[in-house]
Amino acid sequence: MNLRTHKTVTDRRKALERELAVDLKNIGHFSLDETMASSRNCENMIGVAQIPMGIAGPLKIRFQPKEYYVPLATTEGALVASVNRGCKAIAESGGALVHVERVGASRGPVFRVSGLDQGRQVMQWVAAHEKDLYVLASAVSSHISLLSVETQMVGKNVFVRFAFDTSDAMGMNMVTIATTRISQTIEKETGAVLVAAAGNIDSDKKPSWISLYEGRGRKVWAEAVISREVVAGVLKTTPEQIAEVGLRKTLIGSAVAGLLGHNNHAANVIAAVYIATGQDGAHVVEGSLTMTTAEVDEDKNLYVSVYVPAVLVGTVGGGTGLATQAEALRIMGVDGGGKGEHADAFAGIVGAAVLAGEVSLLASLATNTLACAHQVLARGGK
Amino acid sequence: MNLRTHKTVTDRRKALERELAVDLKNIGHFSLDETMASSRNCENMIGVAQIPMGIAGPLKIRFQPKEYYVPLATTEGALVASVNRGCKAIAESGGALVHVERVGASRGPVFRVSGLDQGRQVMQWVAAHEKDLYVLASAVSSHISLLSVETQMVGKNVFVRFAFDTSDAMGMNMVTIATTRISQTIEKETGAVLVAAAGNIDSDKKPSWISLYEGRGRKVWAEAVISREVVAGVLKTTPEQIAEVGLRKTLIGSAVAGLLGHNNHAANVIAAVYIATGQDGAHVVEGSLTMTTAEVDEDKNLYVSVYVPAVLVGTVGGGTGLATQAEALRIMGVDGGGKGEHADAFAGIVGAAVLAGEVSLLASLATNTLACAHQVLARGGK
Amino acid sequence: MNLRTHKTVTDRRKALERELAVDLKNIGHFSLDETMASSRNCENMIGVAQIPMGIAGPLKIRFQPKEYYVPLATTEGALVASVNRGCKAIAESGGALVHVERVGASRGPVFRVSGLDQGRQVMQWVAAHEKDLYVLASAVSSHISLLSVETQMVGKNVFVRFAFDTSDAMGMNMVTIATTRISQTIEKETGAVLVAAAGNIDSDKKPSWISLYEGRGRKVWAEAVISREVVAGVLKTTPEQIAEVGLRKTLIGSAVAGLLGHNNHAANVIAAVYIATGQDGAHVVEGSLTMTTAEVDEDKNLYVSVYVPAVLVGTVGGGTGLATQAEALRIMGVDGGGKGEHADAFAGIVGAAVLAGEVSLLASLATNTLACAHQVLARGGK
Amino acid sequence: MNLRTHKTVTDRRKALERELAVDLKNIGHFSLDETMASSRNCENMIGVAQIPMGIAGPLKIRFQPKEYYVPLATTEGALVASVNRGCKAIAESGGALVHVERVGASRGPVFRVSGLDQGRQVMQWVAAHEKDLYVLASAVSSHISLLSVETQMVGKNVFVRFAFDTSDAMGMNMVTIATTRISQTIEKETGAVLVAAAGNIDSDKKPSWISLYEGRGRKVWAEAVISREVVAGVLKTTPEQIAEVGLRKTLIGSAVAGLLGHNNHAANVIAAVYIATGQDGAHVVEGSLTMTTAEVDEDKNLYVSVYVPAVLVGTVGGGTGLATQAEALRIMGVDGGGKGEHADAFAGIVGAAVLAGEVSLLASLATNTLACAHQVLARGGK
Repeated sequence: MNLRTHKTVTDRRKALERELAVDLKNIGHFSLDETMASSRNCENMIGVAQIPMGIAGPLKIRFQPKEYYVPLATTEGALVASVNRGCKAIAESGGALVHVERVGASRGPVFRVSGLDQGRQVMQWVAAHEKDLYVLASAVSSHISLLSVETQMVGKNVFVRFAFDTSDAMGMNMVTIATTRISQTIEKETGAVLVAAAGNIDSDKKPSWISLYEGRGRKVWAEAVISREVVAGVLKTTPEQIAEVGLRKTLIGSAVAGLLGHNNHAANVIAAVYIATGQDGAHVVEGSLTMTTAEVDEDKNLYVSVYVPAVLVGTVGGGTGLATQAEALRIMGVDGGGKGEHADAFAGIVGAAVLAGEVSLLASLATNTLACAHQVLARGGK
Repeated sequence: MNLRTHKTVTDRRKALERELAVDLKNIGHFSLDETMASSRNCENMIGVAQIPMGIAGPLKIRFQPKEYYVPLATTEGALVASVNRGCKAIAESGGALVHVERVGASRGPVFRVSGLDQGRQVMQWVAAHEKDLYVLASAVSSHISLLSVETQMVGKNVFVRFAFDTSDAMGMNMVTIATTRISQTIEKETGAVLVAAAGNIDSDKKPSWISLYEGRGRKVWAEAVISREVVAGVLKTTPEQIAEVGLRKTLIGSAVAGLLGHNNHAANVIAAVYIATGQDGAHVVEGSLTMTTAEVDEDKNLYVSVYVPAVLVGTVGGGTGLATQAEALRIMGVDGGGKGEHADAFAGIVGAAVLAGEVSLLASLATNTLACAHQVLARGGK
Repeated sequence: MNLRTHKTVTDRRKALERELAVDLKNIGHFSLDETMASSRNCENMIGVAQIPMGIAGPLKIRFQPKEYYVPLATTEGALVASVNRGCKAIAESGGALVHVERVGASRGPVFRVSGLDQGRQVMQWVAAHEKDLYVLASAVSSHISLLSVETQMVGKNVFVRFAFDTSDAMGMNMVTIATTRISQTIEKETGAVLVAAAGNIDSDKKPSWISLYEGRGRKVWAEAVISREVVAGVLKTTPEQIAEVGLRKTLIGSAVAGLLGHNNHAANVIAAVYIATGQDGAHVVEGSLTMTTAEVDEDKNLYVSVYVPAVLVGTVGGGTGLATQAEALRIMGVDGGGKGEHADAFAGIVGAAVLAGEVSLLASLATNTLACAHQVLARGGK
Repeated sequence: MNLRTHKTVTDRRKALERELAVDLKNIGHFSLDETMASSRNCENMIGVAQIPMGIAGPLKIRFQPKEYYVPLATTEGALVASVNRGCKAIAESGGALVHVERVGASRGPVFRVSGLDQGRQVMQWVAAHEKDLYVLASAVSSHISLLSVETQMVGKNVFVRFAFDTSDAMGMNMVTIATTRISQTIEKETGAVLVAAAGNIDSDKKPSWISLYEGRGRKVWAEAVISREVVAGVLKTTPEQIAEVGLRKTLIGSAVAGLLGHNNHAANVIAAVYIATGQDGAHVVEGSLTMTTAEVDEDKNLYVSVYVPAVLVGTVGGGTGLATQAEALRIMGVDGGGKGEHADAFAGIVGAAVLAGEVSLLASLATNTLACAHQVLARGGK
């Protein structure tokens, strides 16, 4: 079957049905704008995957006038219920405190140089021309600005790591365009040869120490103090037991296993939110770099926190304009674009939702009900 | 809004629409079986996310009688086209060779012991009773069997890492149930205290060196030899240029950035396949541990390979029974369950698709057309 | 100066003195057997470095009839005093409990194969011929035996990781010889091409997850329960304060920094013991993979432990036969060779000494006297 | 035996000899100034370890008027010969090119804060008061100045990573004093509680990604282009074969093993130089973070390079004033102190020596003579 000969989604799907003798009527059942989706989001489109979307909440974030309902697209039974329980525990304790910092979406080209002398010249040129590079980046779009530049040299390889503020877009496309232009300038001015506009120093959609440490997109912190009473009533355990899981599993277990990111299941929550809202599913990888802490505080309550170093989200562009995804963003009231405040708010919700998921799973483990939850909720024989 | 008071998907969605004054009609537009989905896959369900699904292929795998079309659910413009181009290059070169090994889905509880003496006793007890633990696991389901057991001790913490064959299911629920039962036996027999049935040594949905090295679920290798002519004709570059990107970006760049898994964008392909087929989106994290190599062989052709150490997929259970997901599996002919051969075949396709994605991105980088591809295809202002 | 023309240590040193117009009389002041040293341990020898050697102890290990004095060769003021204080705290609490496990010194060749098919054949051949390889290894020396074999494949690269029991020798030379012979057999039998007899999978003298997880040489665990009273009297702090340093610095700080091995200064103690006793100074790297835990136990005492995954020591061979090094081994009564018990005992002392060092540094940090200790003891203006 | 009752080295050694019935006459044979050594470098001193010192060289560094002889204190047969061969290959190719950058010795306290709000205030206070902290640091000594400050927050933990230029001293003592003073100011100004003046974010004497990426002390790069003829004549192999070892072992093997620092045996050379010259043996750990590259250049010659990210050396203070150590520094002409140029020069030599060691080992592996070298040179039965 030559996929290119089919010009519409329906034609293509029908051709595939004939070729394979399968019925794809559910894939063909959708309401999104196929012209937009097939031109911007998905080549060779034949229809859609329908991913069940549930709601967790209300999620209370301190100093926010309203509570949030968080859309989660998932097929993993028990996940929404778990986040929901975490939201309840947090809400009954006064809400989560959230901080969001824009560190910028990184892109890091690798150049080949003749050796250390040329390499050093490249690094010096870059350091001396940051302002020029800033101008180059800004010329790509009014929605992008260069935040920081770092260089590294290993043998004949010079890596430059740029990070860009991309306002309310996730922005990797703008970032790649800006990086390519900047890289061409570097080539011209220094004689270095661009080997790859993305040299893995970025490190987009891959788990890395640099992203854990420096962050990508937005760094988000969230914390809550959950009283003993709420821990007992909602989570059916004690602060001490949760702190012990946080110590023996989350910290020591992670270290022994060689984990990047010492958390419990941050990826679960991030995957469900990203899929619901038109984010890039591969960015879940970077969400998994989360660090979670749980300790008993001076008042014998439970202090829990997450540091989510790489939240790559947009409220415009990418998949956010698709019908269900746009609705999901509107559920949280973070749809639309501006100077980045929408995505800031969204990133804060992501952080708080991850916190809710962590709290709930820590409690399930502490009470040894992980298996039960899945047994009851996902009794479909998985 | 009290989410619990609403018993049907429609009720719940309508209540949310009223509460938030939003219109969620697209989320409410779906054809899947809401009774099944809302009880097994997604609590508090309000509808679905529609994720555009495209097709890449035909993907040729050597020694397979037929070619595959790979369903990819994504909102990232250019991804399907990129995988498609990789498939073409591979097909014109005789196809990908694939190897699949079942290493088993791991679960690793952490126990608290009184100290090194008791810890050592626990480790010795486990080593001496592997057969008993095998029997315990098999009693959970005829679809599960214990493959291997490892122990580690750090201070008062004893970690036991079990890996289970789960036939054609991804199987983490069965695995958790089996692990919980085994853990209770260990508690009873040794006096160790179970702190968490999942002690991060597993390390489910988290990026870890242990998963990169030992694998989880299925280890998959895929390779192809792409002739100079095909590299020139389809990929518009040379084996030498691709090998250089493979060296400077994939190997050296990854090392400098502190990556686990030296690849280019394995997570992209895995995310799209997993979302299309009802797999767990959070398992994309482990797919990102892929190692990619690219070199010029003796005949001056391009040799490329991927080692995907942790493919966690099922063809039954989880989200695979949902309408569009089941159809997506049928497109590849890997739907349904047996003794694991369906999931073996599916894992092989995942590996080959990752290879196709890697080949194509390496070529885009080598020709510096990464930005162009996105500029043209995703011109929606992302 | 042509170094080769000088046949004796004195000639060579004098030639260097003339060439550079320097006086090297202290380097020329030594009592070791220069014929042995210059032929076995150090080419182009001109004399010795005199490294101050101090004594810490007595170090009490539970179930051992006698106490140990630990020789430490170091130029870092405060180190011996610090270990000494740790020894005192441990001794007053009944001594350290120690476990030693021989996991074997690893060596891991890398072979080039034509692709996945040949690679898999190599892995299968190795798995099927473990006994033959065992025989090959044993033929090298009666002091060596093959303990375990693992294989890995990435593209055209097959890695085989052998681990050998080397009795009372550190044994990397025997190990390399045995690995080379085995590798030649693998080449002959499978057609794979040996690229390097040491393929970094070993990973000798380098910090790696695999060595942290699987160990090298000997794995050593040591623990002590230090009563509140001793913590107060000897360490001038409380179990709670030490546990807090263990949590916030040793566990969380290490995770944030991307450490392999979550400890405090294990390398300090291991370097000093290794230099004193003729071990290989580069093996300090692997000692630094230590995991340290500190917690308050149920009786409000301090529980501290170390897991030192890679202790590579010998009591025969290498530098152990040199005059001062042999005396240092005799101070601990672990000199001489047998079937490995000498090195087992020595490894246990290393573990307990690391524990003593960790306890003392944790206390210095808890009381914020780290700077004071160095200010007083190393007031030489460093 | 109460070690404190003995006031002189001789008394203490004799008491130990009596207590243990051993003869320690070689340990008692030394020429260094025992008053200085026992007060500044080594408590409870009983004598010295005599470590054989050999010479490698001449080592040619480009743009340097003279060639260097490098003192190596080691007991590992074949090491000096190996470095020597590397020096020869480099010298015959015109010498090594070296770059040295002072990034500063880091120290990173961890503070406990009440939560994210106070944590952010601490980070903001630090950022706003860098100049004040600079003044505080400079008040400790004229030899120290603050170069950079970074902050990180995870839950209730705030980490601050300071890096200091320490002129010609390794300087960790000055650094610790300065950090302690700064930390006390931070406590007073922000209310944060200092938990440990060294919070592992530094990460002194431990292998970490942050030190690989940001460096510690001095970053050193060294490279050489070794002609085919010299590779054939001196190294007995070809550039292609060395590059293949560099690819399959140094890059891919390291990635599979989970190494921090993709090199071959950097720790060997660094250990030998550090022990010879009075550096801290535990800093060998950080030297092992070296990245080595080897490739065939356009003229079919061999290009080799090392990036040694953490060279912590001094030419004054610490063990550098001891008799044999001072002589070793004089052999290279880098003894004595100033504004850091002595240690800069020394660090450059360390980098070039590491390069020599890497070149030689790569060749031994390429020709499969690793075992032979050790068999012949260390035939003492190790």
